[in-house]
Amino acid sequence: MVGLRERKKQRTRRALIEAALRLFGEKGYEETTLAEIAAAAEVSTRTFFSYFASKEDVLFYDSEHQIERALAFLSAPAPGQTPADLLRAFIEDTLSTPHEGQDTWSEQSARRLELIMREPPLQARALHLLFDSQLRLAEALSAAYPGRLGRVEAAAAVGSLIGAVKLAVMTTLIDGLPVEQARDAARRAADVAFHGLPR
Amino acid sequence: MVGLRERKKQRTRRALIEAALRLFGEKGYEETTLAEIAAAAEVSTRTFFSYFASKEDVLFYDSEHQIERALAFLSAPAPGQTPADLLRAFIEDTLSTPHEGQDTWSEQSARRLELIMREPPLQARALHLLFDSQLRLAEALSAAYPGRLGRVEAAAAVGSLIGAVKLAVMTTLIDGLPVEQARDAARRAADVAFHGLPR
Repeated sequence: MVGLRERKKQRTRRALIEAALRLFGEKGYEETTLAEIAAAAEVSTRTFFSYFASKEDVLFYDSEHQIERALAFLSAPAPGQTPADLLRAFIEDTLSTPHEGQDTWSEQSARRLELIMREPPLQARALHLLFDSQLRLAEALSAAYPGRLGRVEAAAAVGSLIGAVKLAVMTTLIDGLPVEQARDAARRAADVAFHGLPR
Repeated sequence: MVGLRERKKQRTRRALIEAALRLFGEKGYEETTLAEIAAAAEVSTRTFFSYFASKEDVLFYDSEHQIERALAFLSAPAPGQTPADLLRAFIEDTLSTPHEGQDTWSEQSARRLELIMREPPLQARALHLLFDSQLRLAEALSAAYPGRLGRVEAAAAVGSLIGAVKLAVMTTLIDGLPVEQARDAARRAADVAFHGLPR
């Protein structure tokens, strides 16, 4: 059971994230100060820093959590499960109903992604994070199939799957389509990676 | 035939690129000034700016050229050539012997890539360029197959192929393997994208 203290912390964290997203949307990312975010969430600047290291960090609040989750998933194939089966289960899990602490497919997450894509320094950081996490996932996948899946093949598999999904999702976001269509595009893109390029 | 004036321009451009790469390697990227690059190539700072807009630009000298080349390739399928066949021809062309003005697989290019991967702002720019060019390539591929290959499927195909190749090549570079092994990894990664994830 989560204690009172922990619940209060989660509430403050959530308030900071929501205040930041609202202010970034209203005033622009560059124009919003860290102090304004803290004030809007009714905490001191000092309290802000016990939750996030920077204004930028508020937008990437769940990336490490999601990477850890993905690493755990890819490190534990069921007996007889092939790399393709494991990756398919992984992508299905990611695309399904949001889990606690994971909201990849919510409207709020779509707004955050739009913001990241509009601001070059945020976009750069997001791409870097994504690239780095792919390397870690490939590492974990190769280690999960010792002697069966080399590092290059594991990197190719992870790169192909995430590369396909990322570019397809971005295409729908650039077209201004709603989050449900982005999720559908992600599924179709994963199929392309699973079955190979269109003939 | 290329005139004398044009050849002289190409020589100066090449001298600037070589001076920059050498100085970045010797002194570090941050520590090297634009004026030092110009001096090492025996031109004025003003001349530098008629070739490149910034110190950073010297390292990305051929990206637009390569993107244009790729766009031209993907825009012109032969009669009866499927998207997969066209993408395979494209990747084979890219991985084969260097063309004029394209040196993706030279030792110099490997040194440049190492440098880019070591400097966070350069890495961010490289990832952004790569992402942006993938969107343009997907656009061109979809347009080359009107009514047959939707934008999402084209994005998935391009994202899968380039995603696989990029992550596999990076894995060999992180391991410090020579450029020939990076090229071999690229071929094996392309096969993963063509045939689908490993079963």
